[in-house]
Amino acid sequence: MIIVLKPNATKKQIDHLIERIKALGLKPMVSKGTERTIIGVIGSEDVLRVQPLEVIPGVEKVMPVLKPYKLVSREFKPEPSVVSAGGVKIGTKEIVIMAGPCSVENRQMLHDTAKAVKQAGARILRGGAFKPRTSPYSFQGLGEEGLKFLREVGKQIGMPVVTELMDARDIPLLEQYADIMQIGARNMQNFDLLKEVGQSRKPVLLKRGLSATITEFLLAAEYILSQGNFNVILCERGIRTFEDQTRFTLDLNAVPVIKKLSHLPVIVDPSHGTGSWDFVGPMAKAAVAAGADGLMIEVHPNPEVALSDGPQSLLPKTFTELVKELRKVAVAVGRTI
Amino acid sequence: MIIVLKPNATKKQIDHLIERIKALGLKPMVSKGTERTIIGVIGSEDVLRVQPLEVIPGVEKVMPVLKPYKLVSREFKPEPSVVSAGGVKIGTKEIVIMAGPCSVENRQMLHDTAKAVKQAGARILRGGAFKPRTSPYSFQGLGEEGLKFLREVGKQIGMPVVTELMDARDIPLLEQYADIMQIGARNMQNFDLLKEVGQSRKPVLLKRGLSATITEFLLAAEYILSQGNFNVILCERGIRTFEDQTRFTLDLNAVPVIKKLSHLPVIVDPSHGTGSWDFVGPMAKAAVAAGADGLMIEVHPNPEVALSDGPQSLLPKTFTELVKELRKVAVAVGRTI
Amino acid sequence: MIIVLKPNATKKQIDHLIERIKALGLKPMVSKGTERTIIGVIGSEDVLRVQPLEVIPGVEKVMPVLKPYKLVSREFKPEPSVVSAGGVKIGTKEIVIMAGPCSVENRQMLHDTAKAVKQAGARILRGGAFKPRTSPYSFQGLGEEGLKFLREVGKQIGMPVVTELMDARDIPLLEQYADIMQIGARNMQNFDLLKEVGQSRKPVLLKRGLSATITEFLLAAEYILSQGNFNVILCERGIRTFEDQTRFTLDLNAVPVIKKLSHLPVIVDPSHGTGSWDFVGPMAKAAVAAGADGLMIEVHPNPEVALSDGPQSLLPKTFTELVKELRKVAVAVGRTI
Amino acid sequence: MIIVLKPNATKKQIDHLIERIKALGLKPMVSKGTERTIIGVIGSEDVLRVQPLEVIPGVEKVMPVLKPYKLVSREFKPEPSVVSAGGVKIGTKEIVIMAGPCSVENRQMLHDTAKAVKQAGARILRGGAFKPRTSPYSFQGLGEEGLKFLREVGKQIGMPVVTELMDARDIPLLEQYADIMQIGARNMQNFDLLKEVGQSRKPVLLKRGLSATITEFLLAAEYILSQGNFNVILCERGIRTFEDQTRFTLDLNAVPVIKKLSHLPVIVDPSHGTGSWDFVGPMAKAAVAAGADGLMIEVHPNPEVALSDGPQSLLPKTFTELVKELRKVAVAVGRTI
Repeated sequence: MIIVLKPNATKKQIDHLIERIKALGLKPMVSKGTERTIIGVIGSEDVLRVQPLEVIPGVEKVMPVLKPYKLVSREFKPEPSVVSAGGVKIGTKEIVIMAGPCSVENRQMLHDTAKAVKQAGARILRGGAFKPRTSPYSFQGLGEEGLKFLREVGKQIGMPVVTELMDARDIPLLEQYADIMQIGARNMQNFDLLKEVGQSRKPVLLKRGLSATITEFLLAAEYILSQGNFNVILCERGIRTFEDQTRFTLDLNAVPVIKKLSHLPVIVDPSHGTGSWDFVGPMAKAAVAAGADGLMIEVHPNPEVALSDGPQSLLPKTFTELVKELRKVAVAVGRTI
Repeated sequence: MIIVLKPNATKKQIDHLIERIKALGLKPMVSKGTERTIIGVIGSEDVLRVQPLEVIPGVEKVMPVLKPYKLVSREFKPEPSVVSAGGVKIGTKEIVIMAGPCSVENRQMLHDTAKAVKQAGARILRGGAFKPRTSPYSFQGLGEEGLKFLREVGKQIGMPVVTELMDARDIPLLEQYADIMQIGARNMQNFDLLKEVGQSRKPVLLKRGLSATITEFLLAAEYILSQGNFNVILCERGIRTFEDQTRFTLDLNAVPVIKKLSHLPVIVDPSHGTGSWDFVGPMAKAAVAAGADGLMIEVHPNPEVALSDGPQSLLPKTFTELVKELRKVAVAVGRTI
Repeated sequence: MIIVLKPNATKKQIDHLIERIKALGLKPMVSKGTERTIIGVIGSEDVLRVQPLEVIPGVEKVMPVLKPYKLVSREFKPEPSVVSAGGVKIGTKEIVIMAGPCSVENRQMLHDTAKAVKQAGARILRGGAFKPRTSPYSFQGLGEEGLKFLREVGKQIGMPVVTELMDARDIPLLEQYADIMQIGARNMQNFDLLKEVGQSRKPVLLKRGLSATITEFLLAAEYILSQGNFNVILCERGIRTFEDQTRFTLDLNAVPVIKKLSHLPVIVDPSHGTGSWDFVGPMAKAAVAAGADGLMIEVHPNPEVALSDGPQSLLPKTFTELVKELRKVAVAVGRTI
Repeated sequence: MIIVLKPNATKKQIDHLIERIKALGLKPMVSKGTERTIIGVIGSEDVLRVQPLEVIPGVEKVMPVLKPYKLVSREFKPEPSVVSAGGVKIGTKEIVIMAGPCSVENRQMLHDTAKAVKQAGARILRGGAFKPRTSPYSFQGLGEEGLKFLREVGKQIGMPVVTELMDARDIPLLEQYADIMQIGARNMQNFDLLKEVGQSRKPVLLKRGLSATITEFLLAAEYILSQGNFNVILCERGIRTFEDQTRFTLDLNAVPVIKKLSHLPVIVDPSHGTGSWDFVGPMAKAAVAAGADGLMIEVHPNPEVALSDGPQSLLPKTFTELVKELRKVAVAVGRTI
């Protein structure tokens, strides 16, 4: 940690600061520059994290040197992690497609969609039973009944299933019915929820918050790993910006940035990220080219009557065509689907 | 709701669309313009909200006419709401100051701070027992012990208390120990939590999410009101933008905007909004001038050793001076503190 | 244009509004809904654009139906435009790579870079002679001398050249020395400059402003086309968001969005967009997969000593490897490089 | 400047780096920490600014210690600057109101507005002759004729005038007709324009760019001061964020932040900042309370027929009422209007 002093910091202030640093068991190294005095602090920055040194008189700013996360970092674990869910591995050379309807609406529709996406090449079935909806008047999901449909259809068709967890009290249900527990963007900093899925060993798909920096995203994952659950898959799904032609701004830059900083697998959700079915194809291809380990895509047999997110869902036929094109891009970057 | 058709929409597509609108029990009114056909839809837009008409072939865009919230709106209730918490009224001519430490650290420190802020003019005591922290390695709060200290000190000093709720399972605890349950920015769209505090009758202080539009903020409040709890206080606490000289961008525009759209009281938190104690004073004054019904300000007797958010806390002495200045601004805009 | 009235609009207000609409030579169509009165206005919206109907008493909001641009739109010209610059066509099946140093620093360095990027597969040489720098103390470019070097080297190596125009008074110089005049992100809404390049017939590469919506970006291009210059190439180069791991947030969503709305060719600049050489490769591949018509990439033989933007420049060797990989992705999406 | 090395930096890399630092005439100070080696660099950071040390192998990041601007900083000049324009001083205890129509539309309207705003308490007359408009089809201003009207009316009523400069070629015109040259938000980084107004001695009102950080805003002012013109007034006018209930997000935090960092006077434009007349009053009061040295407010005798920005203009009567209320707030914070 580097502490930059104000140009007019007094000797008394500097001495007080040095004393406090030593009191924390750390070693200060003072450099007097032409315009500023700077103090480098040797020792574990963890100790410093809880100490707001910025407020000590004479201090202009404190610049941390180390990253605030550990277990999720490449430095902690240089080789990429592979997460295994219901027999499907995420984080290998093979790009894994998760597809299905936004919400589980009924058994038949789920079955038909699952059959179609599996045939097209998807490996994991997605479908929401608990739905986080901006308006209290929107469809809120089928709840446990939806989970049951999901498990049944997954078994029948032979696909592991991923579904959203909104409340820690539902973890036992999810552990029973799902192969991957999804934490949605709006719960990315629901820290109690993060800690509790951290105590499970079930794989967790963690979506990036709408206004989360990549550092905060990795810190949210760190919450889960710090409880012992290393089976975390990160998912970029769009951030909030001023642009309004897309529902969110899908930030594909996050893919190479996270790959550099962390060993965890990263997938991309172009359906929520763009909010519009006609942008899903180009952005899915771009995600694969950027190095994503997987994709999450909404497919609905009849978007006109979908109970949620119809405008961003692909028809099974369009999805099938897309997977064919994605395969070519995957091969071009040395991977498979 | 207005439906704008694509310039090349076919008669067949238009007929299909009209049919669907009628099937929903609504009345379409078709206007053929020089460049576009437009369909106005008469009837309750609630029905339309669940129907993604955008996906029907030939439709270019769907423009809702009505606001998506009801119970929180000025149209539903034109006169301003007053929320009463432990005998203090929020939403009247009197501007209510809530002050105290970021976290409850121990009994003594809380007591000293409470005494000082009460004497300065604060009416409600704040203090966190459950702390939402970006890093899993930061101080996470004292939990129930903190709640007990808060209740005891509040009683002793004679101040109602507000504290953050992070998990729905803690509602019984909060109902017992607190006068106002705070929902933090990171939980603003934790919809399960919103629904459950909606079933309580305890006042709720709802903080705006970091990336929440004002419409989404009002919809989050609507979740609470829709469950029957009308005792909601809204709190602007800064949004995420590109600017990095302040921790967040405190959006004071939200005050007059919400006052126009909603009957709910609005307060402002300049401590979290700016993240820096030396900006708290100017922004607190600005908030009062902009029409806020209250302020939430962090005060700590010794920010150097605070376990959280030291850099944004005021010393009791500075706080006392600030309240004096705030009183003058309040009077200038026809209010009191 | 649709005008939504306030719920309590009086008959007198409505009559006044209708009168004003008729005075503009337009035809109002009034629909009385269950909760609101709505007036659709038939006729050219151009007339309406200058009339702030929002301020007329009783009006709640005015919703334009048509897009605010014309000449740049797909509706005006459904087939994609091809811009020809010094014999190279942009907007065809072939993806065009523009490469070179950020700034022209001297003749030799430019020549070596040009030779290397041409051999690797770049078709157009980039290099700045006038540099828009955030700080007045940074290197400001060689000016006309730089333009001369650029033209000489371009001729020698056989590559058309693109360089930035910052001041309308330099248009004659650029017309003499360059094949494409670039308008930088910070000048995207320098409307006088846009109008004057609109009067030239030289191709213009228009970069998206840091905070420009896609609509504003297209309106900036409309300024150029409206003066008669249809040779416009659009360039996505990153927008400003809260994320700080990348210098800007390269918004690849803009590629399919613009392709849908406009006939103009779109290229992507991953060097400025990410600000970091190690993210240039993945984002360049993603841009090609998303449907970009070209790329602009910074290459410098010795980034350590570059006078500007060293951290985001590729070494010639790395660039050569990248083009090989880009070719594979191009083929995967049915194109060539 | 602090250079943080990668955890695995080799001795050879460190030696190379130290050599380069010495070659720049600077003194490296190496600290080997438990997890990282850090090099502090003593000497003028100006030299370092042009050297992209980030690209040298083994370097993880470079953290500047000093601010990138000088002449505009409080450190360079601790006491606040006062700018004098046509006899009116900006930056004193008196808060200066600049008011008038968005565009100069004709002589009569300008005269009536000027008379009204002067009587209400405005000290400086604003009015645009050259208009930066997002759409090429919007009213572009009266040009020189508008400037003449402005000068005539200003003289007649006895008010200095401020008007926008869009093109460096118009500086002689502005020097003749105006008392303050305004540089609009969209030209804040039009560096050639900044340099040329820097060579004038006429006061410059510099508006913050829509996506400019405060650091970039101060660097833009530094361009002007570095050419010798110290008569610069800064103007906060709203930044671009995701919020859409206001046209921009007026960032009042910028007022105390700039006051801390710079000696230049700061004013606020709530009309453009909010885009809606009914938010102008609350935000103007908030700006005064936050410490602004002045306000810029749009007033139009008949917003219904305004050729630009009607929705955000106040009627003269409303403006007169507002100034009365602003006076009370000014007094409350120890100032006058």
